[in-house]
Amino acid sequence: MRAPLWAAMAVVLSVSTLAGPLRAAERETRIPDAALAQAAQLREKALASDLGYRITESLTTEVGPRLAGSEADARAVAWAEAKFRELGYDKVWLEPVTFPKWERRSERAEVVGKHRQPLALTALGGSPAGTVEAEVVRFADLAALEAAPAGSLAGKIAFVDYRMQRARDGAGYGPGSRVRSRAPSAAIRAGAAAFLMRSAGTDSHRNPHTGITRYDDGLTPIPSAALAVPDADQLARLLAKGPVRVRVALDCGWDGTATSHNVIGEIRGSKKPDEVVIIGGHLDSWDLGTGAIDDAAGVGLTMAAAKLIGEIKPRPARTIRVIAYANEEQGLHGGKAYAAAHANAVAKHQIGAESDFGAGRIYAYSSSAPAHAQAADKQIAAALAPLGIEHTPGTGGPGPDIGPIAEKGMAWARLAQDGSDYFDYHHTPDDTFDKIDPQALAQNVAAYAVFAYLAASAEGDFGSQLKAVTPPAE
Amino acid sequence: MRAPLWAAMAVVLSVSTLAGPLRAAERETRIPDAALAQAAQLREKALASDLGYRITESLTTEVGPRLAGSEADARAVAWAEAKFRELGYDKVWLEPVTFPKWERRSERAEVVGKHRQPLALTALGGSPAGTVEAEVVRFADLAALEAAPAGSLAGKIAFVDYRMQRARDGAGYGPGSRVRSRAPSAAIRAGAAAFLMRSAGTDSHRNPHTGITRYDDGLTPIPSAALAVPDADQLARLLAKGPVRVRVALDCGWDGTATSHNVIGEIRGSKKPDEVVIIGGHLDSWDLGTGAIDDAAGVGLTMAAAKLIGEIKPRPARTIRVIAYANEEQGLHGGKAYAAAHANAVAKHQIGAESDFGAGRIYAYSSSAPAHAQAADKQIAAALAPLGIEHTPGTGGPGPDIGPIAEKGMAWARLAQDGSDYFDYHHTPDDTFDKIDPQALAQNVAAYAVFAYLAASAEGDFGSQLKAVTPPAE
Repeated sequence: MRAPLWAAMAVVLSVSTLAGPLRAAERETRIPDAALAQAAQLREKALASDLGYRITESLTTEVGPRLAGSEADARAVAWAEAKFRELGYDKVWLEPVTFPKWERRSERAEVVGKHRQPLALTALGGSPAGTVEAEVVRFADLAALEAAPAGSLAGKIAFVDYRMQRARDGAGYGPGSRVRSRAPSAAIRAGAAAFLMRSAGTDSHRNPHTGITRYDDGLTPIPSAALAVPDADQLARLLAKGPVRVRVALDCGWDGTATSHNVIGEIRGSKKPDEVVIIGGHLDSWDLGTGAIDDAAGVGLTMAAAKLIGEIKPRPARTIRVIAYANEEQGLHGGKAYAAAHANAVAKHQIGAESDFGAGRIYAYSSSAPAHAQAADKQIAAALAPLGIEHTPGTGGPGPDIGPIAEKGMAWARLAQDGSDYFDYHHTPDDTFDKIDPQALAQNVAAYAVFAYLAASAEGDFGSQLKAVTPPAE
Repeated sequence: MRAPLWAAMAVVLSVSTLAGPLRAAERETRIPDAALAQAAQLREKALASDLGYRITESLTTEVGPRLAGSEADARAVAWAEAKFRELGYDKVWLEPVTFPKWERRSERAEVVGKHRQPLALTALGGSPAGTVEAEVVRFADLAALEAAPAGSLAGKIAFVDYRMQRARDGAGYGPGSRVRSRAPSAAIRAGAAAFLMRSAGTDSHRNPHTGITRYDDGLTPIPSAALAVPDADQLARLLAKGPVRVRVALDCGWDGTATSHNVIGEIRGSKKPDEVVIIGGHLDSWDLGTGAIDDAAGVGLTMAAAKLIGEIKPRPARTIRVIAYANEEQGLHGGKAYAAAHANAVAKHQIGAESDFGAGRIYAYSSSAPAHAQAADKQIAAALAPLGIEHTPGTGGPGPDIGPIAEKGMAWARLAQDGSDYFDYHHTPDDTFDKIDPQALAQNVAAYAVFAYLAASAEGDFGSQLKAVTPPAE
């Protein structure tokens, strides 16, 4: 996961209002009893299966880190295509996704002077290269930096020391990631020569959290990096004792464009194969860890869920399409490309969901179901309840990669994962396979399998329809 | 802490037997009631003080990592001398300690071939530089490697995948550190070109555990390193899928000799100032973290304890001597130098203790007290009991740096710390100040203050006497 999930939500929540109660009486969507009975069996089968865990192990172990546009990213694409085929998917194909390529080559920092010592940091994605040695000026949060007068940081290093809060639903990441996305530009406006932040993370390890940043138009980017949490603590303690000079040396930057691929596999439906339920995760990862919780788990659990659906006879009416999205991390490139390529087929998308919030247990289900689909929505929720999943209508929004097509009118569902420890590992070297609990992952597979099977088996739709996109009011 | 505490114990435990029951009737050691009453006040005062925490913060923040013989080590020596003076110690001095100097310059490793990806590792202290690309051969433990026939690993990288166990008393470190100390030589005997081990640690982070290793005489050292725990997992998973080639590139090695210092401060006694109770920790650290739990805490808490004793009027009869030992990590150099320099004064050492097992709460007290001092030993234990400390006579041994002088006949006490999480951080980048709980550290200060004050106030001795050293039977 990359940026606030919440960014896309305000726009998309209105879908349920557009497809409104007016049509509900005309054609109420319902799920047949036979499908509900089948889903109960599927749920138990998925809970007992380690397939999602094994797929996740395969990607994280055999490919490892897979920064978008890197050599490893290409290996990940080949892996995904081969894995779909090995699992017996009916149709497997690639769709190209082109984007600017960013590379990390080296990075280091140290306090200089009488307290000289190294600091653990990592460049933010999108940062330019550069070496800066300068005095550090600390700001408690983004607002404090934004209040700094123009020129007041001339030749200095701006340091935003905001501490992100832990929450099951990841709510702390909104303010945490806003520092990453907005503070570098604020630092430039105040004249800073480089930017440092306390990692947007909830851990206490020497593993800094990377993530994409952006610079506002018209500004000249400055080297921008995140300190590991203990190093931010250390820098804050040193600053409390007196002026501190730090040397930051980043070698990284944009280097042309790269083409990767959304990798797509289908378990074809028996009656309406041209209508699809889409599930998936993103295939790329940051380069520091092996992208296990972000987002091999999302790829692995959705690949497994559809594979298990494919073993059911008869197949559900509609097709289950699993999408391993390209380059989510640097700007939803895969999700945007998918939405652009399939815009004309929005109405053929029964509903979509994406898993991109780790590998914790799913605790809540919600969707954009309009009035005429709420009975079916309740049937899905009831089938998920034995997994410890609560029905929370009217909450949340779509996963990041389905945001672009949800904006175009696709109905979406949210299977909310417990992210209490997600930001201990997110975007750090510590995002590795050992952090995944196999039982929790199996519960995710079961939930996605039940959801996708029932949505694909419904008589009637969930409100997807191509709508005129109104630009977000920002 | 460096190597098995337990190594020195077998030899030293016999001290209590040497000074035996024969003399007990002659002069039983007792602690006066007034001193016991004073100790109770001291205990409460120490529990309410943050002095130990502040000293530990100062060392870890202002000096940071301080590898023995480095520029930072010299700054640490200056820091310790200045801190003793700032705290009002009566006498402060340095004693030189000379040792071979080892440096870490750079280190990296990666899986090569179709699963290419980086591995997080760190050179073991004492490793030579070298770059080796070769196939990896995994061994489940030290015994398996030691059973490898000579020449069987020619040109290969030996990998010992032994998983250290968590324990309150650190018992898992015995077998864990034996891999570090013995397996490189075993690998050389089997012909290996390089050596890798799963870190001797109990965590699951991408922070490898360093520590000193040695090569048996007559062998040509090979590059030797420890993988972070998740990287050892990853390598083991890859090996389960087929042959794996790894490239290890270490730039490190011995580089002449360096002279550092034991830094010593005294709170002078009121009646027998030439008799001393010694407490302390070691001043050097590994270079990866800031040496907070290993062993700034030991230095900070003993400096604070003696400072608080110094505020009592009248002072205890004997002197409290606090020693910040040089270069514990690479071979007890400071402890050995102290023992050599003070061998003739062993009998003047009332008793000694060292804190070098982190900053967890003390849960047990024991000592080498012979029969004639056991009543006093019980008085000390009773004064420690309100801190949640159990009296466990006959257990444990001296801390590492007091081992050499305890071998010469100094009585010792052990204040056993809860090390349940010690090996999550030990010798890693994660050994930083934020890992220390201030309440637990204050409990340590209180325990050391009570122990040292009472031992210094006792009427009679704890059995220290210079003895003929018999070589350990090994």
